[in-house]
Amino acid sequence: MRQPEEHPGARMAVGLVHHPVLNRAGDTVTSSVTSLDVHDMARLCRTYGVGCLYVVTPLQAQARLVERIIAHWTQGYGSQVNPERKEALTHVKVVDSIEQMLDNHGLDVEGAAVMVTSARTGKGVVSYATARDILARAPRAAVLFGTAHGLAGHAHELANVRLAPIPGVDDYNHLPVRCAASIIMDRLLGRGE
Amino acid sequence: MRQPEEHPGARMAVGLVHHPVLNRAGDTVTSSVTSLDVHDMARLCRTYGVGCLYVVTPLQAQARLVERIIAHWTQGYGSQVNPERKEALTHVKVVDSIEQMLDNHGLDVEGAAVMVTSARTGKGVVSYATARDILARAPRAAVLFGTAHGLAGHAHELANVRLAPIPGVDDYNHLPVRCAASIIMDRLLGRGE
Repeated sequence: MRQPEEHPGARMAVGLVHHPVLNRAGDTVTSSVTSLDVHDMARLCRTYGVGCLYVVTPLQAQARLVERIIAHWTQGYGSQVNPERKEALTHVKVVDSIEQMLDNHGLDVEGAAVMVTSARTGKGVVSYATARDILARAPRAAVLFGTAHGLAGHAHELANVRLAPIPGVDDYNHLPVRCAASIIMDRLLGRGE
Repeated sequence: MRQPEEHPGARMAVGLVHHPVLNRAGDTVTSSVTSLDVHDMARLCRTYGVGCLYVVTPLQAQARLVERIIAHWTQGYGSQVNPERKEALTHVKVVDSIEQMLDNHGLDVEGAAVMVTSARTGKGVVSYATARDILARAPRAAVLFGTAHGLAGHAHELANVRLAPIPGVDDYNHLPVRCAASIIMDRLLGRGE
């Protein structure tokens, strides 16, 4: 990627999390990987110069599927017909767990920021202005996005920054993960107006 | 929808345009409707209190398909199992052309703003700060999003405001329409930090 090293996106990892997430009833489950989410999130991360997109799933069959998709577009026939997709998917990795993602990306250093997103507000949520300040100082950073009905409690426990929900016009808060992630990444890394 | 009438979203229509759009080679074509785009754009518009989402396609078979999807989720079985989806799809209409959309939404009044988006910059593009000022004053407004490789020239001719492209970290500019639209709607209608 051709971003300057000082860009905060270069030090950042994004997690597309399929476990642990909540279902509609509030139970902790593992959601299915959606190939479209992988493509959309990869293009989004490439747009903002994010160092790596981690697809988090403990299901080995689904992990192999994502790896086949990545190989098709980065080395196989897809890489010849769609170079933009190749460029986006080059920076995607598949991992078993959030812990493995944090370990792989060196998130155990002092001052690292692990951010979680939520459709619900609550104690200790930070504004995007505050989050940008944190990112500017953090040596490494991660942002976790939950599929299905959002990240389960254990994912929140692994984080030290909780981002405010995206405020719409009222209390309707049902954006797809690819749309919420687009808005949040633009607020964190987009160049202003 | 429960937005206050003074919210600029309430006076706004969003167009998900399948004709006229460009293909990879730069020819003007009609793209296929993608059911996922309709769902994502409907949820996005509902989040920001947009008055109406228009799905623009001249293909009658595809128009009927979208109408069936809307009916399933607003009146059929889907409306019982997923009320959030019902709420989002209640404000979706299908039209043959951009002209029909503008006519249907009363965009012929003085001072109405018809905004187009583009992945390319150029003469006369306005910043999002300027666009928010325009929206605050406009009695009616529309924002057109092109599928495939973006809006073709004729769509630009129907507009009077051209929004700046979303600036990423460099010249990579290949966001899916649902991601670009999410970012742009948040910049136009989102409540700040």
